[in-house]
Amino acid sequence: MKKLLIIGLGLIGGSIAKAVRRSSDAAILGADLDEATLDAALCEGAIDAIWQPGEETDADLVLLALRPGAAIDCLRESAACFRPGAVVSDVCGVKAAVVAACEPICRAHGLHYLGGHPMAGRECSGYANAVATLFENRSYILTPTPQTDPAALAAMRDFARLLGCVRVTETTPAHHDEMIAFTSQLPHVLAGAYIKAPAGRSHAGYSAGSFHDVSRVARVDEQLWSELFLLNRENLLAELHGLIERLQAYEAALSAADRQALTEILREARLCKERDLVQNGAEQPHPFG
Amino acid sequence: MKKLLIIGLGLIGGSIAKAVRRSSDAAILGADLDEATLDAALCEGAIDAIWQPGEETDADLVLLALRPGAAIDCLRESAACFRPGAVVSDVCGVKAAVVAACEPICRAHGLHYLGGHPMAGRECSGYANAVATLFENRSYILTPTPQTDPAALAAMRDFARLLGCVRVTETTPAHHDEMIAFTSQLPHVLAGAYIKAPAGRSHAGYSAGSFHDVSRVARVDEQLWSELFLLNRENLLAELHGLIERLQAYEAALSAADRQALTEILREARLCKERDLVQNGAEQPHPFG
Repeated sequence: MKKLLIIGLGLIGGSIAKAVRRSSDAAILGADLDEATLDAALCEGAIDAIWQPGEETDADLVLLALRPGAAIDCLRESAACFRPGAVVSDVCGVKAAVVAACEPICRAHGLHYLGGHPMAGRECSGYANAVATLFENRSYILTPTPQTDPAALAAMRDFARLLGCVRVTETTPAHHDEMIAFTSQLPHVLAGAYIKAPAGRSHAGYSAGSFHDVSRVARVDEQLWSELFLLNRENLLAELHGLIERLQAYEAALSAADRQALTEILREARLCKERDLVQNGAEQPHPFG
Repeated sequence: MKKLLIIGLGLIGGSIAKAVRRSSDAAILGADLDEATLDAALCEGAIDAIWQPGEETDADLVLLALRPGAAIDCLRESAACFRPGAVVSDVCGVKAAVVAACEPICRAHGLHYLGGHPMAGRECSGYANAVATLFENRSYILTPTPQTDPAALAAMRDFARLLGCVRVTETTPAHHDEMIAFTSQLPHVLAGAYIKAPAGRSHAGYSAGSFHDVSRVARVDEQLWSELFLLNRENLLAELHGLIERLQAYEAALSAADRQALTEILREARLCKERDLVQNGAEQPHPFG
């Protein structure tokens, strides 16, 4: 990669600019709707120059660091400006809908598209919170299809390592969305449903850490997450339905004061967690508490 | 405190012994059903001597570091061995039932009882995992009643500081149990209900931390936690019922593909978390990941 264009310099796009700047001498172009963000990114040296929509560019990698709908719209409007042969990727948290829209646009313009999703975030957003270390020790998910150019896949694998990711996970867009419904979207639902309890208003002094852990991601950007949830509606509904059913099993055992049933339900949970620790190891805890 | 008797040298009792040893020159007596535990605690110097049930003792503080039922049974059998005027406390995760049972036994024997609950733990149990630092930066909840001796309350406040706790929370046994149902018991239910999902078996590479956070406490000791849940059944049922209802509101908005309703539900969650951060500050994350 000699020249990178990042469209959208929010938390993810801004952090990518800073991480690439730190580990590579690639030229970095940036685009953002917010003037102050562009000024800050230029000032700090996170980007070398501003790219204006409509301007032709010879960047060999174009990253759409926007929300799903905005990423697709932007690609539709700008694909003709990109150098044929360039790799185009996105960072959206849902992949089936985004890949289905972006892949044909890119193909029509001689661009090599590959969907991606860096598994990193913070409980705050925007360029002001972007950090070069955001991707350290994290996974980067890539979702190639039968149309994916092998060289584009290799380039994106290198790119993930350049950011500091320790793991690149390759899977289909559909499987990505199934897994993300469970590992990320469901916990975001849970955090909100949990913290809305009346007792949530005055818990200080009554928690050994669980309150913090369960409610950590409740502070979502509702515009972004309602879009992500609706673009993965069926998978998230299935996860939510399953969780509610399992909670109702606890409720039934407790309601019946059935010690044996309750013990068995708890034992199954312990065995699941122990199997998980053996199979998947202790997942790296998030770096921002 | 000149002489401390700890009955039960598991994770909590063992950690208390080590924490007191580090910060005080009080003599420490220990009791446990497990011979190997007693040997280890003596060898490491966490206790000075073994106390045998039935033996008279002049300890001025007796800590019942046992499960609720076992703590009550032990007190009933041993109260006559304790020096009249001694302070007796317990570390159980439910308080109304334990205080209701222990307070009259102690009063009948001229002992000063006060219920307590150090808000600390690890995802593993037993003396082998006990550490002197377990209580650092944590809360210690004390549940005085109108019968509580003020000197016993003062002694237990000092004791909590001695362990390294930074906060002592005083409340009624009933309010303790209401709060704990939300801050601790519900997350333990949630962790189990979450990790049992089919997708929980192969999540590696698909999580940015939420999987770890939500499932952290799934590895419960089912004998202990079924006892704790049943001793706080109504409060936990109320919390569980409320959570399920709130999850169903997400489910309904998602099922109807109602973007506006979904956005509003997510916005409310964000506002709750933001209010929480302002009111309660960023709770200290748990020290053992």
